[in-house]
Amino acid sequence: MRELRAQNIRDIALGAAVLGTGGGGDPYIGMLMAIQAIEEYGPIHLYSLDEIADDSLIVPSAMMGAPTVIVEKLPKGDETIAAFQSLERYLGHKIDYTMPIEAGGMNSIMPLTVAARLMLPVVDCDGMGRAFPEIQMVTQTLYGISSTPFAMADEKGNSALLTTTDNRWTETFARTLTVDMGCTAFIACYATRGQLLKQAAVAGTLSFAEQIGRTIRETQAAHGDAIEAVRELTHGFRIFQGKVIDIQRRTVAGFARGEAVLEGTHADSGHELRVQFQNEHLVAMRDGEVVMSVPDLITMLDQEKGEPVTTEGLRYGFRVVVLGIPCDAKWRTPAGLKLVGPRYFGYAIDYVPVEQRFRSE
Amino acid sequence: MRELRAQNIRDIALGAAVLGTGGGGDPYIGMLMAIQAIEEYGPIHLYSLDEIADDSLIVPSAMMGAPTVIVEKLPKGDETIAAFQSLERYLGHKIDYTMPIEAGGMNSIMPLTVAARLMLPVVDCDGMGRAFPEIQMVTQTLYGISSTPFAMADEKGNSALLTTTDNRWTETFARTLTVDMGCTAFIACYATRGQLLKQAAVAGTLSFAEQIGRTIRETQAAHGDAIEAVRELTHGFRIFQGKVIDIQRRTVAGFARGEAVLEGTHADSGHELRVQFQNEHLVAMRDGEVVMSVPDLITMLDQEKGEPVTTEGLRYGFRVVVLGIPCDAKWRTPAGLKLVGPRYFGYAIDYVPVEQRFRSE
Repeated sequence: MRELRAQNIRDIALGAAVLGTGGGGDPYIGMLMAIQAIEEYGPIHLYSLDEIADDSLIVPSAMMGAPTVIVEKLPKGDETIAAFQSLERYLGHKIDYTMPIEAGGMNSIMPLTVAARLMLPVVDCDGMGRAFPEIQMVTQTLYGISSTPFAMADEKGNSALLTTTDNRWTETFARTLTVDMGCTAFIACYATRGQLLKQAAVAGTLSFAEQIGRTIRETQAAHGDAIEAVRELTHGFRIFQGKVIDIQRRTVAGFARGEAVLEGTHADSGHELRVQFQNEHLVAMRDGEVVMSVPDLITMLDQEKGEPVTTEGLRYGFRVVVLGIPCDAKWRTPAGLKLVGPRYFGYAIDYVPVEQRFRSE
Repeated sequence: MRELRAQNIRDIALGAAVLGTGGGGDPYIGMLMAIQAIEEYGPIHLYSLDEIADDSLIVPSAMMGAPTVIVEKLPKGDETIAAFQSLERYLGHKIDYTMPIEAGGMNSIMPLTVAARLMLPVVDCDGMGRAFPEIQMVTQTLYGISSTPFAMADEKGNSALLTTTDNRWTETFARTLTVDMGCTAFIACYATRGQLLKQAAVAGTLSFAEQIGRTIRETQAAHGDAIEAVRELTHGFRIFQGKVIDIQRRTVAGFARGEAVLEGTHADSGHELRVQFQNEHLVAMRDGEVVMSVPDLITMLDQEKGEPVTTEGLRYGFRVVVLGIPCDAKWRTPAGLKLVGPRYFGYAIDYVPVEQRFRSE
């Protein structure tokens, strides 16, 4: 067990946006909320998966919706715990821990606010090792864990509790409710006991995010190459360097969908990279050919400072380096690829691991 | 208290379709389900509002969705009680009675199936005295009764439990969930204690529906004028007689919307009546002028047999008599008209009570 304080939160927020592959929302607001909650209620206790009891009850908490809307519609605070408490009442058991469902800007941090306010410890893991746009896209699904009972709440005081026969149905129902709730909602779901979570979760995600964030911060302070430091730490690959010459975003059916077009600079001069996204980056196409896809991580870092750029923060003229980062091994199984591979998202291509197409420099 | 048996159910189904003003679904399937449930579990006990205890807990049960879909997608049976039982679990109290939320073909009968299968008595009342298309359109809303906790279930085993800050939000959320569930869902909501229900409900609806149904049946058997018998019993008015020359229906956002055009015959020869509907009939326009509107009841009866015709059963060439029936007095208050008057449905007209425009013959 270790304690998380303000600086830990800042590092986690920064590093989680690298793992968020463009999605998961801008971590800034979430970071401020979590730091404020810590100041008010005290530090958060972070436990590794190994440290929790097999019979402990863990419930992830998160925000659902289009990141483009999340950055414009700030949470009040109470709604963040309403869904969580509603699920606890329904389960009729005290929840022992919360955890992030994904490693993304906002959603790595949101459980920390819930934890601080409810004085609940947090487990150092998540259900993706990155961010994905849909509810069923978690390693828990691969291990037969139900997303339901699934609690949601909005900032107006409305809430819903879903019970479904599979996690894809939960996505369908929760997505339209999120749209009705104004394109953002707070959720609590995938309640699990410790024993199963130890097999199903991606371990150490918060610590890994923190390590990435700290590395960026310290490398910046030492005037080093933060992008290279992140690449090394994540075992990633530089797949492109360029300037944003076009960015299209639409909020469709509760998602931020769109495409960014990069004009190559430096070694990529004369080439083009298109990155398509559904909240998160899905595929990268170099000169019309797919060179990388989900479930591997496509991350854009600001060329100067090495800081991650989210899809809703991306603007014309931004100069970025695109990193390709191998995903968690659970996603590279046939069941994993069926759930989150390129074909699920409508691309008629097979997944090729990023390390088979690129070399570390 | 009195017992309801198969013949009572048949009469209720027939009469409720008169009060259903074109909506509420075809009562035929619901009737067969209720009769089968009675044969299996025994007769249903029907209590008048006066007979129930002030502290008894009453929960209406109903079907939600587009009638056009309801007639094509038959209930399995289990889902009809799933929503009801889910609400009972959530409330943590034994539910003492169920009741219909509206007087419409399917929805007058659905609670009887729930009652028979759960061996639960039924209260002889409803929340409309007719049928309306949206969840918040009940006299309970006028008395400050919340629609939530609101339970819904589909035939696939999915369910949802909503808690909202007002009944209009419940309509929004429940409607999109109904669309996701395949345009039909089973619901339980508006849990109330007996004391408040006695003020808020429309009393005697099931008995009135039964009386209408029995009157049609007996008048037919006696070769009498069933239409005139229904008109007298409901204190209604003959507003048009004609032949259907056009019928348009679309399933939009979970509703059956459309318009029927009647070419006048007999005394209405040379005139035209247009009846627009959203599940239920909303307005009747004679030669382009609105002559009747919600909340009064616009009901089409088959010219030969005097039986009610629902919007989804209406076909080109049908010969019908259109009756105008005064609505319950609760709907004629300012609050009632705000909730279900013509302006709510987008018509820029004031409500004029049917008896001010027509005379009984």
